[in-house]
Amino acid sequence: VSERLAIFAEGLFSVHAGKTAHGVIRYGTRDVVAVIDSSQAGRTASEVVPFSLRDVPIVATLGEAIELGATALLVGVAPTGGKLAPAWRAVLLEAIAAGLSLEAGLHTQLSEDPELRRAATRAGVALRDLRAAPADLTLPEGPYSRPGTVRVVHSVGSDTVIGKKVVTLELDRAARERGERSVYVPTGQTGVAIAGWGIAVDHVISDYVAGAGERLVKEGAARGDLLFVEGQGSLFHPAYSGVTLGLLHGSAPDLLVVVHKAGATALRNYPDLPIPPLGELIAAYESVARPVRPARVAAVALNTADLGSDDEARAAIAAAESDTGLIADDVVRFGPDRILDAVLAALS
Amino acid sequence: VSERLAIFAEGLFSVHAGKTAHGVIRYGTRDVVAVIDSSQAGRTASEVVPFSLRDVPIVATLGEAIELGATALLVGVAPTGGKLAPAWRAVLLEAIAAGLSLEAGLHTQLSEDPELRRAATRAGVALRDLRAAPADLTLPEGPYSRPGTVRVVHSVGSDTVIGKKVVTLELDRAARERGERSVYVPTGQTGVAIAGWGIAVDHVISDYVAGAGERLVKEGAARGDLLFVEGQGSLFHPAYSGVTLGLLHGSAPDLLVVVHKAGATALRNYPDLPIPPLGELIAAYESVARPVRPARVAAVALNTADLGSDDEARAAIAAAESDTGLIADDVVRFGPDRILDAVLAALS
Repeated sequence: VSERLAIFAEGLFSVHAGKTAHGVIRYGTRDVVAVIDSSQAGRTASEVVPFSLRDVPIVATLGEAIELGATALLVGVAPTGGKLAPAWRAVLLEAIAAGLSLEAGLHTQLSEDPELRRAATRAGVALRDLRAAPADLTLPEGPYSRPGTVRVVHSVGSDTVIGKKVVTLELDRAARERGERSVYVPTGQTGVAIAGWGIAVDHVISDYVAGAGERLVKEGAARGDLLFVEGQGSLFHPAYSGVTLGLLHGSAPDLLVVVHKAGATALRNYPDLPIPPLGELIAAYESVARPVRPARVAAVALNTADLGSDDEARAAIAAAESDTGLIADDVVRFGPDRILDAVLAALS
Repeated sequence: VSERLAIFAEGLFSVHAGKTAHGVIRYGTRDVVAVIDSSQAGRTASEVVPFSLRDVPIVATLGEAIELGATALLVGVAPTGGKLAPAWRAVLLEAIAAGLSLEAGLHTQLSEDPELRRAATRAGVALRDLRAAPADLTLPEGPYSRPGTVRVVHSVGSDTVIGKKVVTLELDRAARERGERSVYVPTGQTGVAIAGWGIAVDHVISDYVAGAGERLVKEGAARGDLLFVEGQGSLFHPAYSGVTLGLLHGSAPDLLVVVHKAGATALRNYPDLPIPPLGELIAAYESVARPVRPARVAAVALNTADLGSDDEARAAIAAAESDTGLIADDVVRFGPDRILDAVLAALS
């Protein structure tokens, strides 16, 4: 019997939160039997988050999820900073006692928590830490050390939680549908939960972020020759910029796609800090990439989810195109084809 | 009886290697009884490394260091990447058995090595990991969250191992001599060994590098009001740029000092990768700082150690001044005063 997931998102499953839950429901290949969020119980995932695509029931308790057949519990939300919320502990212990495996992408590793580990050993269930770093990471060999036949496209952005992962997944899917040997390269815990491989680079010791980026590209190169490497954070984010730049220099892309939320002018979690105008942001990414391995921005992936109508979205896209001189589009609303065309044209 | 250090640098104590050994001998306040390096035995530290300043004997074996009164052994060299070299294990175990404490700044933590830990417990000696990260790191509050009375100067650079730490230490010392409430803020393992506090930010989980930088500034603010924050890596270094940018955005300096090795045009460990001209490098640091917290470069600290004569050094300094329009000087060769003048003028 293959695994059936329940996704724990208590009080937090919404359009604006629960990235891991959204990603696994929309893009994962595993069966999802329930989302647990008592504040939304009785509805379905796609009623609350239209983007979910799959009609997973939302239930109030772990017990209901188990009745629906859950064999594993995925922690589908993460507080900013990625620590284990104390209130979740009772539910996790209840899941272990009921024989469910646990899976989470927190900085607080499940397998390093003595109480959870003891309980899991007693119950004979697995604890899977999506953010666990490989033990043998090293410094990168260098930005020209990968096979010359591999082309690397990296999605970077103007903030966190704006859809870099979604853009990366959609471009990869569309490229595979066109017959490319394309690979989605996961660099965060949700990507690892979706794809079943990858490294959550934000949990790696900072000296090894670039080494992790290079390793992911080399592992990707064993799976295909057109790699879409998911970006993390943002170059001007006061908490995460180090992860962003380390991953950029380590993965050493040939080409960039810049992801931006239409209308956003300040950072989501640091509202006093401005997001530079798109043209400046693009120039900044190209200029920090250049001395390590030059990469130009091929297109702008605009997230227009906050705009009510397709007409407003089209106007925002046209404005981004006119500001930057690049192709812009919303890969979710209008599909990834125009951006993929721009990427493939720039690589050829 | 206070601690007496022996510094282990087998086969590696030279002008070009052994940063931790150099730093602790020159700037540390603890007694150093010997450097262990059989390839240099019979000489003194300042014969091999004139920069050392203290006349510490170099001996061939741990036994000789113990005869000279060593009570603790510091691993004073680190291979690139920071792992524990297998050949060192026997010496570390011998030191533990002889009752010496061990201190090291490797990514491989002494206290996480089962064999070393068992031996240390048996012998009742301490294992001190200079690179151990605090367990309670978080994301930064933001670049304007520190007291407004604190001024932060950050030393950044064009490569690794060019003297950012030395520049930081010399500027702090000179500022204290002028009566400033100045503090050296250590951000790497050698700095922690010298100053007895700080965080080796390159060993922190990458998500928390900026948080560590902000915490160091706030801890520094409790010790004084003019902080000289040691930089790490370099903005265009393919392995370490993430650490550099995370620390820059987290420490959110008011002012930068750029450190550069005279004549260097390519990275030390990645000779195929160019170092941009000084003017471009300065513009790049200012431009990545700006959206988070603007900081301009006040001066260039030029490392002229490879130039044979003072005249050549003066010519290189004059060229750097003319290229950049900033004050430049070599703080070791000619003293930190001109650069400190430029820093204090820019802050006032």
